[in-house]
Amino acid sequence: MEIKVMANILDKNDRLAAEVNALLSDRGIFVLNLLGSPGSGKTALLERTIAALRDELRLAVIEGDLFTDKDAARIARQGVPVVQINTGGGCHLDANMVKGVLGSLDLARLDLLIIENVGNLVCPAEFNIGEDAKATVLSITEGEDKPLKYPLVFKQASAVVLNKIDLLPYTSFDLAAATEDIASINPGIVLITASCRTGEGLEGWYGWLQDRVAAKKNAKGGKGQ
Amino acid sequence: MEIKVMANILDKNDRLAAEVNALLSDRGIFVLNLLGSPGSGKTALLERTIAALRDELRLAVIEGDLFTDKDAARIARQGVPVVQINTGGGCHLDANMVKGVLGSLDLARLDLLIIENVGNLVCPAEFNIGEDAKATVLSITEGEDKPLKYPLVFKQASAVVLNKIDLLPYTSFDLAAATEDIASINPGIVLITASCRTGEGLEGWYGWLQDRVAAKKNAKGGKGQ
Repeated sequence: MEIKVMANILDKNDRLAAEVNALLSDRGIFVLNLLGSPGSGKTALLERTIAALRDELRLAVIEGDLFTDKDAARIARQGVPVVQINTGGGCHLDANMVKGVLGSLDLARLDLLIIENVGNLVCPAEFNIGEDAKATVLSITEGEDKPLKYPLVFKQASAVVLNKIDLLPYTSFDLAAATEDIASINPGIVLITASCRTGEGLEGWYGWLQDRVAAKKNAKGGKGQ
Repeated sequence: MEIKVMANILDKNDRLAAEVNALLSDRGIFVLNLLGSPGSGKTALLERTIAALRDELRLAVIEGDLFTDKDAARIARQGVPVVQINTGGGCHLDANMVKGVLGSLDLARLDLLIIENVGNLVCPAEFNIGEDAKATVLSITEGEDKPLKYPLVFKQASAVVLNKIDLLPYTSFDLAAATEDIASINPGIVLITASCRTGEGLEGWYGWLQDRVAAKKNAKGGKGQ
């Protein structure tokens, strides 16, 4: 019974996610769903990304949080459009929530929409929200066992940012094991080792994003629109 | 409709949690529900706790994980009884899962049962699983903004272990702000600042647990059983 309810919720969500994606694809906007544990560094990654790319890409952010607008305030300080979704305690964003706020964004002037999901390594991986790709942030202070313990969020991601690499000397994190486990779960994943505090290693992340944004624009052009 | 389904699930869970708690209270066993993000250090805290208390308390552990038995294997190496619950991808333990494994433990020879929940700062806070108290582990590498962003798990906990304090010099974590925010959410909470890697600060945690176990035993004695 509970399983059937859940299946219905997921089916309905997938239909709405397809709607959201179609709407944004019509405008050639690349949509990223950014996932990770609380404190893995998702917002810090966004701050760095905006600072690095805002001169060449038109960026906006949707911030998912339980109750507060703390992360949205951090993004607003970077001078790009940001919309807050509060789930009221809910553990993940869904496509209906995203659909509901799209009207607050000027979609005609956008190349890249990044949606920061609720900090949670489990539930958000089950709900598509209209994205073209998912990216997962894992901080090395969480431990190298996390990919095998929470595989879905790594299986579904196109890229993973292994964050807080500046703390490597002060931890017992096994970088080789983590890299191997992530590749075993998802052989095609792009792995970027970086520190959002120092900026080290983030060029690979910026390049990956730029390539995806360009590919989405080309795909739209190819359709003759 | 979805809200009603959720309310029914929570009601049923609360009834089962009361059953589990009654069964364990009859034997004077103190039951702790241990919560925290992936990688906050819940299993490391358990390893330290077992090493420190196993000569004076009869301890057992229930390990909640999505798929693996990695944490249970770590606890088994400490030489105490451990039972694994795999949720099959589910984001939290519930009372029915705990009830289902109690038969695997020798309850006549137990003072303290610690249940390590799925790594998740959101969903586990909504489901009682038969515990006498919840404790939350927050690592300082997650950032001082987490208590206000994920308040329920701090509101419901009787104690919080602020872990990885050995990394404080290498982060920008604001200890005063975190302490103040936790106290504002839950004025009665016991806050323990510690490092499960070095062992620093854990005496306060051991003492808190010992007091709770003793109080539970006395409560049982007081009932004349």
